[in-house]
Amino acid sequence: MYKAPELKVCAWLNTEAPVTLAELRGRVVVIEAFQMLCPGCVAHGLPQAKRVAETFRDEDVVVLGLHTVFEHVEVQGGRDALAAFMHEYRIPFPVAIDAPGEQGRLPETMSAYGMRGTPTLLLIDRAGLLRQQYFGAIDDMRLGAEIMSLLQHSTASTADRAAPDDGALDSPAACTEESCAAP
Amino acid sequence: MYKAPELKVCAWLNTEAPVTLAELRGRVVVIEAFQMLCPGCVAHGLPQAKRVAETFRDEDVVVLGLHTVFEHVEVQGGRDALAAFMHEYRIPFPVAIDAPGEQGRLPETMSAYGMRGTPTLLLIDRAGLLRQQYFGAIDDMRLGAEIMSLLQHSTASTADRAAPDDGALDSPAACTEESCAAP
Amino acid sequence: MYKAPELKVCAWLNTEAPVTLAELRGRVVVIEAFQMLCPGCVAHGLPQAKRVAETFRDEDVVVLGLHTVFEHVEVQGGRDALAAFMHEYRIPFPVAIDAPGEQGRLPETMSAYGMRGTPTLLLIDRAGLLRQQYFGAIDDMRLGAEIMSLLQHSTASTADRAAPDDGALDSPAACTEESCAAP
Amino acid sequence: MYKAPELKVCAWLNTEAPVTLAELRGRVVVIEAFQMLCPGCVAHGLPQAKRVAETFRDEDVVVLGLHTVFEHVEVQGGRDALAAFMHEYRIPFPVAIDAPGEQGRLPETMSAYGMRGTPTLLLIDRAGLLRQQYFGAIDDMRLGAEIMSLLQHSTASTADRAAPDDGALDSPAACTEESCAAP
Repeated sequence: MYKAPELKVCAWLNTEAPVTLAELRGRVVVIEAFQMLCPGCVAHGLPQAKRVAETFRDEDVVVLGLHTVFEHVEVQGGRDALAAFMHEYRIPFPVAIDAPGEQGRLPETMSAYGMRGTPTLLLIDRAGLLRQQYFGAIDDMRLGAEIMSLLQHSTASTADRAAPDDGALDSPAACTEESCAAP
Repeated sequence: MYKAPELKVCAWLNTEAPVTLAELRGRVVVIEAFQMLCPGCVAHGLPQAKRVAETFRDEDVVVLGLHTVFEHVEVQGGRDALAAFMHEYRIPFPVAIDAPGEQGRLPETMSAYGMRGTPTLLLIDRAGLLRQQYFGAIDDMRLGAEIMSLLQHSTASTADRAAPDDGALDSPAACTEESCAAP
Repeated sequence: MYKAPELKVCAWLNTEAPVTLAELRGRVVVIEAFQMLCPGCVAHGLPQAKRVAETFRDEDVVVLGLHTVFEHVEVQGGRDALAAFMHEYRIPFPVAIDAPGEQGRLPETMSAYGMRGTPTLLLIDRAGLLRQQYFGAIDDMRLGAEIMSLLQHSTASTADRAAPDDGALDSPAACTEESCAAP
Repeated sequence: MYKAPELKVCAWLNTEAPVTLAELRGRVVVIEAFQMLCPGCVAHGLPQAKRVAETFRDEDVVVLGLHTVFEHVEVQGGRDALAAFMHEYRIPFPVAIDAPGEQGRLPETMSAYGMRGTPTLLLIDRAGLLRQQYFGAIDDMRLGAEIMSLLQHSTASTADRAAPDDGALDSPAACTEESCAAP
């Protein structure tokens, strides 16, 4: 459990003004990191993020998308392609485009969180601490329970510093239909 | 919100000793009321109850089944038929057979809770108060969140008496694939 | 490929008069052998048989159910229990109750076809030959294609005698959620 | 029923040489017209086309994709974007990029067939006649049966000229999750 690094973003969609984690203190934040050409994100991650947005109240839980492109950068890295994707898939929440890494490295937010691939789901508590980081699928019942747990508890003020914990799921060795692993 | 009426049961399966709500004080109790020939129970209600049992720890959340037979009583009312059903469908939690009502009335526990049909899901908090009563389907994310909310809050000692509230779902006019309505 | 043995039946439901395979010559016959407490039958086999009935015309393809009870005989062997099941699950086609075997043996039709368990799907051509016998799941696209193939070809008059062929699927070693194996 | 117009294509993927309908005479041809950002194509149309390719033998049935971009042309119209999409979604069959229409008109093959949107599925018989054209979803059992019917019958030599028939499904008034309608 440690303080969730601020997002490093090159552009936002579906929002009038950029969003910072700092300004969301006091609310639980759910971030769905995805790529528009990642089958597991399209089939599972993004629909689940939509259900989070529908299940919890805006003043309690903020859902954000994070487009962390680490594959096929030329063709899915653009703002216009993402905007078209979001229109067709009716993504209702703000989506940030992760700042590209230098010299072919992973995007900056992806790198700061040590994400292994997409979809990755981040749970940040009211105090801004990163509480869970899941790579791959997580079931709805457990996710609903975890978010509610954060809603009720997480006003702790101390940010214990520790290594990132990316969740209970094993990392697949390679890219599968369910998720895409970073190199 | 009111005190959950004690179960009136003619037999128990999957448990060595009968279970009472009184002895479960301090834990959250999830009761899945079902009929073995109710398609909505078989396809949705019972699998969801299994997922509750898998998602939460036994010492926190107790899952019980309640066989509330109000249709086809002769053929699905027996203990042996239910035992065979539970074996085939691998139901892992204790199941009570609701005490038959007198003179063709609804079974007694079903009647005491004012259930409209099956599947019905009851959520009882640590203090023994009935907090939710759903007739028909409820989605996993919301249910996970509600159970977690009860886990963290419900040590209130006062049992406000009020009319039963059987949840947000409308009652279908008749028996459908998704649920079976009592007469 | 051999002549499909006539059904040995102790009762029929959903039909005014008993049905014989002999009288169905000229039509393709699809028989879904099931048990009402077999999870794989309820979740997959019977819904697929319904889709066959909806997809093809009555004058071309006849769909029949066959209740082949080899487990929990006391509780799912009765006509009333089956009638209640068929009402709740809205089974639209005629269903035969397989004649019980003597001294605890498998039911007679089940035995005559060498079925390994439920669900089993039989495909009988216009000439009365048994053309396929599947134990377990088969996908819709292949089944649709096989039925159409029989519809167009099977007016052959010769019944080659051969050992029964119960399909491409391996038999599971034991009873699973997907199918129930006979002893 | 009329002769299927030849494909007008600006590029092919997943094949060494361009494919023409003319050279496929004698085989049944199934064409899945799609857009990579069309949710109904990704969730239903393309997976079904894969199942066709898996169910029937190559020498009997040829499956082709046709990328008919009429929306978001700038971002999903490129060959590289489509190649990345096909890689991620593991599309195993050859895919043609429909030739762009002049001055903002619909792509040329799409226009020649009078397609209303995506996904559209075309069934062409052994003689090169267009036998079905479905806009939107079609169930697997019916599709399997129709393909088998064409496999067995369609060596007719006469191409009756008639207006295109694009299937039994109504056209939705606007773009939905299930399909995307052309303007």
